[in-house]
Parts: sequence; C-alpha cells; structure tokens
Amino acid sequence: MRWSQSFIPTLKETPSDAEVPSHQLMLRAGMIRQLMAGAYTYLPLGWRCIKKVEAIVREEMDAAGALELFMPALQPIDLFERTNRKEAFGNVLINFHIRRGDRSVHLALGPTHEEVVTDLMAKHISSYRQLPITVYQIQTKFRNEERPRFGVLRTSEFLMKDAYSFSATVEQLDTIYQQMYRAYCRIFARCGLDYLAVEAESGPIGGDASHEFMVPAANGEDQIVYCRKTNYAANLERAETGRSAAVVKAVESGLPAFEKIHTPQMGSIEAVCKLLKCTPQQMIKTLIFKADDAPVAVLLRGDHDANEGKIRRALGAKSLEMADAETVFSVTGAPIGFAGPVGIKCRVVADHDVPLIPGAITGANAEDYHLRGVVLGRDFELPVAGGVYETFDLRNAAAGDPSPRGDGTLELVHGIEVGHVFKLGTKYTVALDCNFDDETEARKPVIMGCYGIGVNRIVASLAETKHDENGLLFPLSIAPFELLLVPVSVSDEETMNVANRFYQELKGRGVDVLLDDRDQRPGVKFKDGDLIGIPLRVVIGGKGLKEGVVELKWRNEAEASKLAVASAVEAIIEQITARKQAELAKVPT
Amino acid sequence: MRWSQSFIPTLKETPSDAEVPSHQLMLRAGMIRQLMAGAYTYLPLGWRCIKKVEAIVREEMDAAGALELFMPALQPIDLFERTNRKEAFGNVLINFHIRRGDRSVHLALGPTHEEVVTDLMAKHISSYRQLPITVYQIQTKFRNEERPRFGVLRTSEFLMKDAYSFSATVEQLDTIYQQMYRAYCRIFARCGLDYLAVEAESGPIGGDASHEFMVPAANGEDQIVYCRKTNYAANLERAETGRSAAVVKAVESGLPAFEKIHTPQMGSIEAVCKLLKCTPQQMIKTLIFKADDAPVAVLLRGDHDANEGKIRRALGAKSLEMADAETVFSVTGAPIGFAGPVGIKCRVVADHDVPLIPGAITGANAEDYHLRGVVLGRDFELPVAGGVYETFDLRNAAAGDPSPRGDGTLELVHGIEVGHVFKLGTKYTVALDCNFDDETEARKPVIMGCYGIGVNRIVASLAETKHDENGLLFPLSIAPFELLLVPVSVSDEETMNVANRFYQELKGRGVDVLLDDRDQRPGVKFKDGDLIGIPLRVVIGGKGLKEGVVELKWRNEAEASKLAVASAVEAIIEQITARKQAELAKVPT
Repeated sequence: MRWSQSFIPTLKETPSDAEVPSHQLMLRAGMIRQLMAGAYTYLPLGWRCIKKVEAIVREEMDAAGALELFMPALQPIDLFERTNRKEAFGNVLINFHIRRGDRSVHLALGPTHEEVVTDLMAKHISSYRQLPITVYQIQTKFRNEERPRFGVLRTSEFLMKDAYSFSATVEQLDTIYQQMYRAYCRIFARCGLDYLAVEAESGPIGGDASHEFMVPAANGEDQIVYCRKTNYAANLERAETGRSAAVVKAVESGLPAFEKIHTPQMGSIEAVCKLLKCTPQQMIKTLIFKADDAPVAVLLRGDHDANEGKIRRALGAKSLEMADAETVFSVTGAPIGFAGPVGIKCRVVADHDVPLIPGAITGANAEDYHLRGVVLGRDFELPVAGGVYETFDLRNAAAGDPSPRGDGTLELVHGIEVGHVFKLGTKYTVALDCNFDDETEARKPVIMGCYGIGVNRIVASLAETKHDENGLLFPLSIAPFELLLVPVSVSDEETMNVANRFYQELKGRGVDVLLDDRDQRPGVKFKDGDLIGIPLRVVIGGKGLKEGVVELKWRNEAEASKLAVASAVEAIIEQITARKQAELAKVPT
Repeated sequence: MRWSQSFIPTLKETPSDAEVPSHQLMLRAGMIRQLMAGAYTYLPLGWRCIKKVEAIVREEMDAAGALELFMPALQPIDLFERTNRKEAFGNVLINFHIRRGDRSVHLALGPTHEEVVTDLMAKHISSYRQLPITVYQIQTKFRNEERPRFGVLRTSEFLMKDAYSFSATVEQLDTIYQQMYRAYCRIFARCGLDYLAVEAESGPIGGDASHEFMVPAANGEDQIVYCRKTNYAANLERAETGRSAAVVKAVESGLPAFEKIHTPQMGSIEAVCKLLKCTPQQMIKTLIFKADDAPVAVLLRGDHDANEGKIRRALGAKSLEMADAETVFSVTGAPIGFAGPVGIKCRVVADHDVPLIPGAITGANAEDYHLRGVVLGRDFELPVAGGVYETFDLRNAAAGDPSPRGDGTLELVHGIEVGHVFKLGTKYTVALDCNFDDETEARKPVIMGCYGIGVNRIVASLAETKHDENGLLFPLSIAPFELLLVPVSVSDEETMNVANRFYQELKGRGVDVLLDDRDQRPGVKFKDGDLIGIPLRVVIGGKGLKEGVVELKWRNEAEASKLAVASAVEAIIEQITARKQAELAKVPT
C-alpha cells in the first residue's frame, strides 16, 4: 500500500474526550472514528489489525477441530424467554418489535448465540454417534451498554468469536475444553498479548469449569487476584486465599467489659468509624443471610467484602440471599445495620480473620447502638475443633493475602477480559430440548461448553498495553503493516527508484509493506510511522543512499542499523523472518 | 476436511416449504437452516461458499483501489432524518429506541451506509487534494422484509459489499465508476455467474449513471429487457425500444361512425374487454397525469404499461404524478376510468403504437360510457410533423419490440439482482455537509458514487441457476470443496491408506479436499457429493485399486476417466489447474 493512496488520518493532538491510552492512540493513529456513543467505525488501518486477529483466530479454531458457521444477528425473542435470558439480560438485551403486514414480530439482537445454536443442534442431533461437535463463528454482537466508554474497549456492538461445543459425556466436554483452552493460549500469544488465564466461577459441572483470559492493564475493568510466585490467578469472585483458621488462645484477663454506645441512625461501617474514630479493621461486620431459607449471621472484618459463592459453599447451601428486614429483626431485635455476634439468635459463621480482631466494635443487636470492646470467647463464641476456631474463607481475596498455593502473596491487578471458556452443562439444552440417545437408547440432554473471544478487544488491549510516548508498539502478527518504507525525498528520482523497487520486491515476497510516498519532511513520516505502530522501518535516501546504504530500525529498539542497498531486500526479509520466529517461539505448542 | 469430522446434514427429501431451486438445494445440501422467517444460519458448507465469494470480492475491490473499512450496524436515526431516508425507507428501516440511564436513544439498523460513510468523510475531507477516495466494507445489512421468501434470496439480514466513492469532479467519478464496473464484471465472472450488466435508471448525474448486475433466472423478482443480437440490456424502468412514429395515412373512407356504448361501472380495461368481447390491443388507454401541475392525457395501447420516467422526459417535465379525481373530472367530465381522446380538454400525447390501432375502443369522457370505432384523424387528432405523427416511446418495453440498437428483437427475462453501481451525485453530501475546497478555494459538495454487491445472493443465484436433477453444479472458485475423495470401503486398509495419502498430499499442495470417510455405501456418498456440488470426484478402491487405478469424474461431465495410482495426485492437480484456468479465461481483463 502507498500512503498517498491510503486513508490514514493521523492526529497530532490527543482528542480531549479520549481517556485511556487505547482510545487516544487508536484515534490518533487513524484506526478508529466515533459514530456515536459506543459505536466506532474501523478505518482501513484499524480494520487491517482486526482482520489479522480474525485470521489467527480462524487458524487456531480450525486446527482445534471447530467448524465455522454463521448465525443471524436477529433472533426470535421466544428463545430468550425459554432460557430466561430475556430477564437475566434485562436492559442489556436490545429487543424490539417490527411490523410485517398485520403481524408484529418481537426480535432481539443477539448478545451471544447460545439459544440459536442450541435450537439449531436440537433439530440436528439425535444420537451419541453425532457427538461431540464444536462450531464457531466470528460475528457482530449487540449489547446495550448503559455507559459505553473507553473507546473500543466497551461498545454496544463488537466482533466476537463465539464457539459452542456439544458432547455426550463430561469426559468429551473436558477434552474439548482443554483443546479450546490451548487454542486460546495460542491465539493470545500469537497476537502478542501478555495475558493471564484466570480461574473464574465454577459452573454447574463443577471443578475447573471456567477460565477468563485477562490482559493486565491499569484501565482494565476487571480485578484479577494474582500471585507472581506461584502463577495462581483467579478473578475476584473465584479467588481462594491461603489463610487458615486461628489457634484458640485463652481470653486475656483484665480486659474491660464491652460498652454500649449510642450510634443514632449509623447503620454503616463508615458512619460508625467516623463517630468512634476507629478504623474498619477494628470492627466485626455482621451480615444476615438466608441460606436455604434459614437465617445465618456471617462475621467478617469491617474492611472485607463478603463473597457469596464462598459463603454458600461453606454453608453447603443450595441458595443464598441477603435476609430481608423482617428476618434481620427476628434474629437481632433491631433493624438492618445494627447486627452483632453478642446474643444473636441464629447460626453464626466467621471468616478466618475475625478471631484476630482484639476488642472489636460490633453492632449491638439494638436499634441505634453498637458495642465497643467485644472479646471472642468471653462475649460470644465460635465453634472450635482440634485447637483452632472453625472459621472459613468467606471473603474476597485482598492484596497481601497468602496465595492458596502455599507460597507467595496475592496481589490485585486490573485486567481486560479478552476471552472466556466455560463448561455450560445442560442449562440451554434442557431449556431448548436438545437431547440425544446414548448407547443404551436412553434420552439425555446434550452437554455444552461455550468459548468466547472479543476480537476488537484484542486490538484495543494491545493498544492499551503495548505503546510508548511516541505511539503504538504492535507485534508483526497484528500491526497494520509489517514494514514502513520511508523515502527521504519523494522528488529525488534515485531515492524513488530504490524505494519503488524495494516496495515491489518486498510485496512480491509476501512482506506487508507501506510505502510512505507523501511529499512530507522525514520527521513527519517518522512520527506518523511510530504512531501507527509499524514494527520495522527502512529509510531510503540522503547521504546514506549516496554511500550505498539504507537505514533499518525496529520500532522497539533504540538503535538503527545500516544495510547495503544491493542486499537490503534479502536482509529485511531475513530480519522479519527471524522476528516472526521469535514471536512464534513464545506461543505454547 | 474429513466428512466424519464435518457438519454436513444433507437431506434426501425436498422440504415442503421450499419453493425455489436455490432454497431447496441449499437446504438439502446442508448449507443453510432457517432460524425464523427471513433469517437463516449458514452451516459450515454454505459458509465456505460465502467466504470464497468474500475473498474474490476483496481481491477485486483492493485491486480497483478501494480501501476496506468497517462501519457500525447501529446508526443514529438523525442521520436518516437529515437525508429523508427514514421516510423513504418506511417500514423497511428497522429502527427502535434503547434506554441508557435516563435517556432514550433512537437507533436504526443500517440498511446501507450512505449516511454513516458521508458523515465520516464530512469530518475528514476538506480539500480537493484528498480526493478521489473509495472505501468499502463487507458487512451485515438489515431490512425489514414484509414478506421474506425464496430462502436466502430475500432475507431481512444479509451480507453486502458496499462501496462508496468520493470525488471532486464528475470526471473523477466517471473513472471510478468504470473501475468499479470492471471490478464487478470480474467478480461475477470469477464466481461463475452468467450475468447481465443492465442499464438502470439514470440518476441526477445523467448519462450512463447506473447499472444493475442481474443473473437471468426463472424465479428472479426483477424483469430485464434484453436483446440477444445487440446485447442491449436494461431494466424495465429504463429500457428504450427501437419503435418509431407511424407515417400519417389518409383516413379510410366509409368507416362507420363510432358508437357510444353503456359500460356501467366498468372503469377497467379488463371489464370493458369482457363486456365488449374485445382484446386490450383494440383499446386506447387514456391516463390523466399532472406534469408540473398541468393536466396531460397520455394515450397508450390497452395492453401496454405506462413508463412514468419516459412520460416525464417526453413532456420535459420536472415532476409527474397521476391526476386526482377532481382534475380528471375537469378535463373529461367523468370520474376516473372513462377518459378518452375524443373531446378531451387538455394536452394529449400518444405512444408510438396508438396510431396503429384501427377503429379503437376508448373511454367516452362520460360516466359509464365507452366509444367503439374511434378513428385517428377523424374523431381525434395528434400533432403531425414531416409526414409522421409526433408520438413518443411512453411505455415499458415488451417482448417482441425492436431493439433500440437498430437490430434484433427485445425479450423479457426474469433476473436476480446481485449488484448495482450508481452515480449518486451530491444528494448525501449536500444533506450531510460533506464539502471540499477546490483549486480556487471555492467550497463545493463532494460527488459520490455507490456500489453494492449482495454476497449471499451470489451463492443463492449460483444455486438457482447452476444445478441439475442430482444437485448443485458449482464452479471450482465457489464450491465448498474443490475435490471429493471417495474411498469405496472405509474398512479396507489398502483403500484407506491410498485415500489418506492422497488426502494429505493434495491438502499439502493447496487443493481444497473433502475426504468422505463415512462408513456408507458408495452410492450414498456419490449422491451426497453430487448434491453438495463438488466439481471433481475421485473414487478409490474396489477392482480399480487392485488394477492400480482410481476413477476421476467431473461433476458436470458424464464420463469418468481412470488415473494410475502412482501419478494420480499429479494428474488431479493438473486437471484442477487446467479447469481453474478455463474458469479464469472467461473473466474480463
């Protein structure tokens, strides 16, 4: 491509409404333009990157045995009603009526395609002999984002690679899941992303049922719990901690009795801290839940966040929800906001950190009152077994917690989700009657997995994490072009002869090359080349050309090198080949 | 691809709700499945065809200098309001409100992207130096089809290649139009379609401003006027005829005077014919129009259809519309349905064929009455100049008309529109303020062209026109696979060794090969292979293999030939290469 015949509207200034680096740089590099809130046009340069991602995704999905198809974006709403996802998606699901003759047809724009693909397979699959099968598509998805932001990181319309597997047994599902997991690792590595495969919520299948693929980034909207030492990574919902129960100690003698303090209308940790001039770490937070309909008091340190999944599992409960005001009153004798362990009339479970709080501040189980100086073993009890308190991991992991893998310390990092693999189980196949006959002719629901990749997000994550003060730093695999040829002066015939010859030869040899044939100063061309993130630059002309050399510089290296004109094309191809091999060497096999 | 690992659900029976060959065959070949009315999933086999079309479209558009980008499907409704297309599209434009926080946002799903691309360019183009530029995308379009039908020929959601050119001068536009026209011819020829480039309505730019690319097909919804001898082709709206004005002859003497016949409530040609036992060819149809607000009576032969574009141009009028009842009464003295040339009180223009009707039946300009035996030159007059009547071509062309190119006869054929190139002019750039400064720094609206291809329709048109009683007959360029390898028995080790070796070698040499490794009788495999339209089949096994040969058969040839196993791979590649060259030889350069 010749720059003069392309459409690369670079910007010198950072647009004022762009907050994050990916948004700023992709706008400045002429890769995207906004149409309206949450909707962007990909200009030719950005679209080249997207197509390169798509090609990698296709190669890896095909190699993993998935079959590409293409499903409609418009979907009948009744499929979403049958799976309860119309309600679950709420305002995120774009849905509307269209008029056809006298009829009104209620349609949704697909946010994903579990319903459509399950409906398709329900009509096709009848026997275990047809299983397993995995299909995928690369298709535009629609979700109403209440607050679209961060440029192309979060939009109402995006390209997604969504794959769905259908299997007869959990073992088949496990095998496909591993194939997809491996394909995902290869895809993200080939795209040059530093990613983490993060344990996510365990689904209905149980076990290692779900992984999110996250790119650590300061502006990421997700939180990842991560241990550098053990490589443990999980999302906040799922992350365990390596904490354990505290050893039971004798109650210190001579401690003052707790005092009851008037805390009018102060039902929050913050309000009480302010009044009592204490920190949340000195408080016990008492949350009343209903676990399988029975009230339970959950004790946490004041600064910690309850993790409902962990609480539910610790209680062995099927369902868990926050108790209503009536239940709270029945066990505490007070409205919500004043619960505490002293004298509470229900089962009490505590997080591991609770016994470590000396003389705690708690609710008083009386309206507008708290207690100060509450002592475990004296004022309230927790179950004890084998010399330790029977406490649990009931809260979200926090920075500084020990890793659950026995070594190292957890940290919290922000991340951008670029992929998700999930063992779905039979939720959709049961709802949509997708069944098969097994070897014994017993009718069973097909077992599903689903596997998504945000295609646009891969490019946006690269921009977000791979840049310097001059612009984008894209890998050869994704950069809009591999090589930028810069003739120093387009009016110098000798220079343009060499530049055009290089351009033709390199293009003919399969190098993806952009020739900057604009009548601009070299400085302007260098700046633009750096901005749009082309990995390799070759400068032709001036004194060098008179001496029979051209200058080669990798975008991510400080120093340039010189190549003899006569052998430059070969040398460039050698260097690109070597760099490609180095990029591929990082891809797991 | 191995058949056992693919997803090709062929059907033995023709589904009862499929009316046209493309719908029947694409369903039976396992290429598509219906999700709901007007929405189809492309299964892997159908999707392979679509991707091959996409690749050809991209190659030709890139070669023609168009730049690929990707615009959102969701579009703000106000852009359509500014171009008046919200009203023009009416119920076809899918549009709805979504809720974002407290705000309601009115969106449309793009039926095409003139508005979005013009808005984009309006923000980018400022000078003639940036022009011309042509951009394109391959993207899903949405249109509410009141009566979706004919399978994937007409759906509410379809893949379109839409290109838009922006130029400073009409000469630039003409050059791009020719490039696009040529690219379109190459695309359709490479896809193996027998197409016609059909003259379509002349736009605001005038001249040769619009061509539709049509595939003649019995079930096509468009009508093409075509002359085999001169290759003249135009759509019905646009087609001229080679007819000319009749020579004035003296009125035959002794003809009976016309008679006034009571035709109560018979305001239609059909009703009058039935009553008077005559044919429409014996009648003069008199239509009252308002041309630039003045009433005009247009005379046509009773079986002919008025062509408003031709009438408007013949009258030199800017606007033309059917007259209302009041106007009709004012010039005829009767309600609509009884107009005739005798005594009418307005300007009269006639089609060339009118003077050729002897003793015509016409309306009587009186309610519930017609006249029989009306004679031109005696009962009414037409202007005469140079010995011929001043008549015009005012009607749609009909089969049997002389070609406007001076030789040959017109026929009417049905066609499927697969593409359209159009000189748009400044309609959108004026509405959306897309202007540039010319060399003299004068501000001018950019001149646009638009160029569309229905990607799905190419495959559907192929299916509609390239099949026999056994199934699809696709060209190598578009067929889901180029070659079908059929081992006669998958349980025979020798057979499978050869089949697997061929498969690997041919795949490695770039042949797109499907190995039918199903444990099925050869007859079943042959039937399926013919159905899905794979151009070349190689059968391995049985007596032939023992004799050291395999059998090669082209899908479109009756006879098979034998290849020695040792040199079969080379021979297959040679034959495929030769066939590809033969396909390409038909592509215009």
